[in-house]
Amino acid sequence: MFSSTGRLTDLICGNAAANAVWSPRATVQAMLDVEAALARASALHGVIPASAVDSIVAACNADNIDADALMTGAAAGGNLAIPLVKQLTAVVKASDAEAAKYVHWGATSQDIIDTGVVLQLRAALDLLDADLLALSEALVMQAQAHAKTPMIGRTWLQQALPITLGLKFAQWLDAVTRHRERLAELKARALVLQFGGAAGTLASLRDKALPVAKSLAEDLNLQLPALPWHTQRDRVAESASFLGMLTGTLGKIARDISLMMQTELGEVAEPAAAGKGGSSTMPHKRNPVGCAAVLTAATRAPNLVATIFAGMVQEHERALGGWQAEWEALPDLARLTAGALSNILAIVPDMEVNTDRLARNLNVTNGLVLGEAVMLALGDAIGRLEAHKLVEGASKASVANGTSLFDALADNETVTRHLSRDQLKQLLDPANYVGQAQAFVDAAIANSKKQER
Amino acid sequence: MFSSTGRLTDLICGNAAANAVWSPRATVQAMLDVEAALARASALHGVIPASAVDSIVAACNADNIDADALMTGAAAGGNLAIPLVKQLTAVVKASDAEAAKYVHWGATSQDIIDTGVVLQLRAALDLLDADLLALSEALVMQAQAHAKTPMIGRTWLQQALPITLGLKFAQWLDAVTRHRERLAELKARALVLQFGGAAGTLASLRDKALPVAKSLAEDLNLQLPALPWHTQRDRVAESASFLGMLTGTLGKIARDISLMMQTELGEVAEPAAAGKGGSSTMPHKRNPVGCAAVLTAATRAPNLVATIFAGMVQEHERALGGWQAEWEALPDLARLTAGALSNILAIVPDMEVNTDRLARNLNVTNGLVLGEAVMLALGDAIGRLEAHKLVEGASKASVANGTSLFDALADNETVTRHLSRDQLKQLLDPANYVGQAQAFVDAAIANSKKQER
Amino acid sequence: MFSSTGRLTDLICGNAAANAVWSPRATVQAMLDVEAALARASALHGVIPASAVDSIVAACNADNIDADALMTGAAAGGNLAIPLVKQLTAVVKASDAEAAKYVHWGATSQDIIDTGVVLQLRAALDLLDADLLALSEALVMQAQAHAKTPMIGRTWLQQALPITLGLKFAQWLDAVTRHRERLAELKARALVLQFGGAAGTLASLRDKALPVAKSLAEDLNLQLPALPWHTQRDRVAESASFLGMLTGTLGKIARDISLMMQTELGEVAEPAAAGKGGSSTMPHKRNPVGCAAVLTAATRAPNLVATIFAGMVQEHERALGGWQAEWEALPDLARLTAGALSNILAIVPDMEVNTDRLARNLNVTNGLVLGEAVMLALGDAIGRLEAHKLVEGASKASVANGTSLFDALADNETVTRHLSRDQLKQLLDPANYVGQAQAFVDAAIANSKKQER
Amino acid sequence: MFSSTGRLTDLICGNAAANAVWSPRATVQAMLDVEAALARASALHGVIPASAVDSIVAACNADNIDADALMTGAAAGGNLAIPLVKQLTAVVKASDAEAAKYVHWGATSQDIIDTGVVLQLRAALDLLDADLLALSEALVMQAQAHAKTPMIGRTWLQQALPITLGLKFAQWLDAVTRHRERLAELKARALVLQFGGAAGTLASLRDKALPVAKSLAEDLNLQLPALPWHTQRDRVAESASFLGMLTGTLGKIARDISLMMQTELGEVAEPAAAGKGGSSTMPHKRNPVGCAAVLTAATRAPNLVATIFAGMVQEHERALGGWQAEWEALPDLARLTAGALSNILAIVPDMEVNTDRLARNLNVTNGLVLGEAVMLALGDAIGRLEAHKLVEGASKASVANGTSLFDALADNETVTRHLSRDQLKQLLDPANYVGQAQAFVDAAIANSKKQER
Repeated sequence: MFSSTGRLTDLICGNAAANAVWSPRATVQAMLDVEAALARASALHGVIPASAVDSIVAACNADNIDADALMTGAAAGGNLAIPLVKQLTAVVKASDAEAAKYVHWGATSQDIIDTGVVLQLRAALDLLDADLLALSEALVMQAQAHAKTPMIGRTWLQQALPITLGLKFAQWLDAVTRHRERLAELKARALVLQFGGAAGTLASLRDKALPVAKSLAEDLNLQLPALPWHTQRDRVAESASFLGMLTGTLGKIARDISLMMQTELGEVAEPAAAGKGGSSTMPHKRNPVGCAAVLTAATRAPNLVATIFAGMVQEHERALGGWQAEWEALPDLARLTAGALSNILAIVPDMEVNTDRLARNLNVTNGLVLGEAVMLALGDAIGRLEAHKLVEGASKASVANGTSLFDALADNETVTRHLSRDQLKQLLDPANYVGQAQAFVDAAIANSKKQER
Repeated sequence: MFSSTGRLTDLICGNAAANAVWSPRATVQAMLDVEAALARASALHGVIPASAVDSIVAACNADNIDADALMTGAAAGGNLAIPLVKQLTAVVKASDAEAAKYVHWGATSQDIIDTGVVLQLRAALDLLDADLLALSEALVMQAQAHAKTPMIGRTWLQQALPITLGLKFAQWLDAVTRHRERLAELKARALVLQFGGAAGTLASLRDKALPVAKSLAEDLNLQLPALPWHTQRDRVAESASFLGMLTGTLGKIARDISLMMQTELGEVAEPAAAGKGGSSTMPHKRNPVGCAAVLTAATRAPNLVATIFAGMVQEHERALGGWQAEWEALPDLARLTAGALSNILAIVPDMEVNTDRLARNLNVTNGLVLGEAVMLALGDAIGRLEAHKLVEGASKASVANGTSLFDALADNETVTRHLSRDQLKQLLDPANYVGQAQAFVDAAIANSKKQER
Repeated sequence: MFSSTGRLTDLICGNAAANAVWSPRATVQAMLDVEAALARASALHGVIPASAVDSIVAACNADNIDADALMTGAAAGGNLAIPLVKQLTAVVKASDAEAAKYVHWGATSQDIIDTGVVLQLRAALDLLDADLLALSEALVMQAQAHAKTPMIGRTWLQQALPITLGLKFAQWLDAVTRHRERLAELKARALVLQFGGAAGTLASLRDKALPVAKSLAEDLNLQLPALPWHTQRDRVAESASFLGMLTGTLGKIARDISLMMQTELGEVAEPAAAGKGGSSTMPHKRNPVGCAAVLTAATRAPNLVATIFAGMVQEHERALGGWQAEWEALPDLARLTAGALSNILAIVPDMEVNTDRLARNLNVTNGLVLGEAVMLALGDAIGRLEAHKLVEGASKASVANGTSLFDALADNETVTRHLSRDQLKQLLDPANYVGQAQAFVDAAIANSKKQER
Repeated sequence: MFSSTGRLTDLICGNAAANAVWSPRATVQAMLDVEAALARASALHGVIPASAVDSIVAACNADNIDADALMTGAAAGGNLAIPLVKQLTAVVKASDAEAAKYVHWGATSQDIIDTGVVLQLRAALDLLDADLLALSEALVMQAQAHAKTPMIGRTWLQQALPITLGLKFAQWLDAVTRHRERLAELKARALVLQFGGAAGTLASLRDKALPVAKSLAEDLNLQLPALPWHTQRDRVAESASFLGMLTGTLGKIARDISLMMQTELGEVAEPAAAGKGGSSTMPHKRNPVGCAAVLTAATRAPNLVATIFAGMVQEHERALGGWQAEWEALPDLARLTAGALSNILAIVPDMEVNTDRLARNLNVTNGLVLGEAVMLALGDAIGRLEAHKLVEGASKASVANGTSLFDALADNETVTRHLSRDQLKQLLDPANYVGQAQAFVDAAIANSKKQER
């Protein structure tokens, strides 16, 4: 019998830990956790009898829930909370008919669903936080390790000027640092309780409304917002936006790695995991399987963000479509981001670096990419304009004759007057023309440390 | 034990039949169907031994596949076909070691995955086709039934001029007719075989390549394209676009219905299905649960389309992210469209129409919305400019005094000179000022019949 | 002669101040401001002769630039900076041939374009900041003014329970407060210099690179980032995300207002500006023209955000498409957001509120929406379950007989035993069942004050 | 004085012809053309006096319109037609006060705006049609020219198996052929009149409504739809979808070209237009400026499509935001598509092809990419399994020793027993292992001819 839980591609596009956070079971359990906390908080303030709490809390276990009935009921009621509360009430009733009367007291469906999602989001953000820290540390390590490894910088997919591989890592690192900063700000704003009752006034709880809300937030270890936010979805949008931005940065990293992995470049490779990306018949082929997964996420994430943004335009005190659009989009987005991050994290620390190929590729233009270095040095002596003309001529000659720029310059009288062959060689050594690469690496690392916790 | 297959919201946002088409099992079976057909087609042309066919075909049953291993293998290999072929080969080998050598002969992973998706898409489009026909017929019925039911037309969410409810149905109908036309064109272009081998040349099949391709297409009852289309995704984009456009139209219908269902308007209601949208404590409340599901789909669909469009920019002969982005986006989109369509189909045929409220709402402006009718009639006699001034004055007086436009006009000397009280009453009867509503209803119905099959 | 600058719809979708920030002229001037600052900063550190500065700075005026040649040159070079630098150099050369050699020294096109955009963005964010403060104050004023104005709360577009109009304003206010907080965080992260030279190493400036960068940032009053960010676009994405989120919130406000403005509801209206939204022939019609503009922006903004997010996946040290996609998308987005904000700001302070209609609409269900209040009060005496049954029965009777809930309850023996007619009347007064509306209003206002500057 | 019409990037992202179609002036003129045609059609049926026609038609010239007043008026009225009709009426009145009464008779703003856009769209589609035909012909030419030029096929950005450059062109060609087919279908459905009056019933034209509509459509050479389509936007969505799909295909072409243009690959280059993409200091650099413009369009187009799809969910008889979202999005999209197409068209016919580099790149794996060819040949003699093992071993040896696959195989006893050195050489010649490349090229060309007109 074929039996599958979740989508077949869940492990390509996600990772097991994040999948667990957003699984059907975890979704139900999160809502039940809210119901349990609500019972405790309500009893604390005498809204429901203390005697009802244990029975309700005990029943708040996903194992008590029939998923098929939940799905069918959700289609009829329009959300998951309605059939869930129904089932929960029945479970409580079976053991304690009196307690069953107090299930879900004072809450509306959206209170349970939204707060449940916030609990799941907290777990998801915690996983990302840990992975981001690990990625940050790996990038620091790599940036340091390759701070002096020259490679060609490329603009427009054309070779431009030398950089260092360490600088590339530092670039990625600094973006990751900013994402860690954003994540901290996001948590402070997004991880809040939703609790407003049917129309957002908590009217049915009368004078106990605010005390119950406060206790409920404390019980769940969430912040208590100034007021409910049923149709004010900027917090959800900000969460989505963070996930989307992070995925964008990861996509950029994957783009770079996959381009450097091209057979013709061969500068780096994803680490050779067991059976990952290899091909028995084509041993030269090392498929960037991890990068592909990240690029897939990066193709999808922007539009999942757009869905959640589009859904912000909600009607009155409960939305008709805009809220509901979050239900699959936010978990999908969070899952994709987590998968993208774990894929990059599986690559960066052990990424294979082929310094031979890096060096060889630096030389495919026969030194033309270093023309500027020579021009600057000559310019000090003969003026920049003159130097520019001279190097430009030599460059063209080099292309025309298929010789190196060194050869095209070495016998030039003006050059020899001002530069020794050795000086010329030094100028044409890419390692000597990487500008502030080291300073930038240091700055990015220093920046990342500030954010350490 | 909590046990769920698929997402908990699958029945809110989809329907059971469409969910089945895109289920993990169906996905695997579709790929296996392609493998079986490939074995048959290859044997037909002597590419693999005829003796291998039965063993391979017999093994091509999803029940032989371990979903968990498939998911894990997919993460390592980057797609579902690699681990599927591995498992399939093992299954065949267990019964027929010789036949196992010929599994997947000449094909590449993408051939199997893409053709499998095309088979699923065909099933999904067939379901949509049937539902669109049913919706078309229901709309014809309703357009005819309400061809003479006047209601207020609204622009900018403000009352404008009378229309008929039949015209509203006819508007929806004509869009549905166009979608049916598009669907026919789409099928002719999108339901094609994918078969190109590792680099799209079918090189490994040597001189048998085209005959096998032709037989494979025939076996699967798919069209044979001029050439493989591994990184030419316009057909997939067109499918997505069709789904997105249809969902947009369904969203428009749901928007209208939900606005007409507002408590304060009460003109129509979703049919009262068992437990759907009702509220025991608030008997006045009839939640537009079906419309909400459709509006959810309409919020999400445009961005799923955008994902697939964005994915079209693919690299060389096999994509790195763009193709893979289709894997979840296309099924999600197809599922949402199917769910939106079945929700509208569950509403339209038995939609409750409250003609009293329609009539009452036509009168909330005290007849102001009919001012144009009077102005035109008077204009024939006294010139349009004069008539315009007169009616404008009466309208302002009506608003100022809270009287009806009839009263504001009935005693006006100019009016009485040219119009009897009865004529005035007729002019202010909305049913007499619905213009070409009937003609448009007839035209839309006639149009829909042309598309019948 | 027809002559137009900009798009004809620029004033529908934007506002004059924001249009000015992003106008072609302002775009060119911002880039020239960067060139001028670069000349000053370079001269400060002896990179270029001090004598060149004045000529260069003087030339950095958009009036010196031929827009048509710029556009044509941009098409050939692929960006605006290449032809701009060419023109600028020519202008400088005309007056000071020596100085012309030092134009754009050490910078790359992207340095100029990105920093120019950051300068424009700063101006745009400053405008938003001021408008957000004004909107915040207007919302505080309205929330206070209507803290005790009851109205019906609506969920699923159906009447649910009473709220207050003040609470609605408070909901909008709290979202605005969060956006103001986000804006402050965004400015700290996004308003930074871009300066990296051809490959992001500032190599051509040799040992003067960092000093020049520092002075350039100071000159422009921008922050100096740890390193250049040519292909790390998270800062731009965060700016876009902020704009998109804000527009989403504004869209929600516009949705609410336009729904409340429906002819059949008539609860509020956009202030009657000269010729705005009115209709001479249909005096009952008050088109929500401002809301429509905001909803237009809210339809477009999510996808402009998605474009910028999608563009984050950039190649190596300079992107091929992803960066360029920002050029029109970011200004469009900023312009739409500004237009949406100014439209809402034009509505909120002087929004017409029709308290009669608010009250009348509260009563269209004949009191059914207050059933819960009676049930709670009775529940204290006879138990909630019993009370629920009783009120449910009365509600059904009320619907069936078309009587008010008061009448359906007033003669009920159980009711009369526990509640006087006056008590019943009090319970059925919406103003007495708005829960924590006042507390929430106060909290939202207090929150907004914390963010004042 | 700096003076610019349109956006500075208009020529990067668009082309002059398409810009002209969507210019402010053309937009106004298209609406005026509709007003003129309406006057003629109305007079034909006696709805307005024949004597009014000439004055109205004469006034319908964009030169009579004040663009600034139009923009300001549009902000107040919410659309362009309201202030345009006002200005037009004033212009007519100045010469013929009587005729001025009959301007815009029976039409609503949306009739004029939508039909105007349809006229612009027709012009835009005609331009695309011509360019698509030219591109098709260029691709046919290139596919034929390079039908026998072997190159490496790449999957996952890794070298896979040989293909031909002709096959690559044929792939692009076949997608273009499908787009031409779609365009023909689209024109038949999308180029229709919009004419419905205030609420879509044409009520004010009474019994002349349908005759006027028919004549108006004929006058404008548009099709007459069964009924107005004010809030049924599937036709617009289909237009957007076509533009988006086409841009996706063009993006794929640009992606391929820009990847092949990488300095390290150097297989093709954009034709060297005057000053386009070159660099004086870096003569090795040939920036893919055209491809960048296309990739920019391909990044933006999906989200512009999504905007128009999202806007389909419109309210009642006139939308509040959804329609208005089309106003800038559709022209932007059409302009981007036109620009992308003209950029590709500027590249393909004269694309530089470096057959040396194509050949060299085919050999960077030392023949490993031809292993399959040897395996198949050997398999005929010794069985596929044995052959697979043998070639796999040789491939690994080749990688390990840095020798060619030929050398690794040439001395193998099993090989020499079945294959001569010459046969082995033939097998390792990429030109001999391109499968059905020629057949596919022929099929794609044949397909394209069917669509010729």
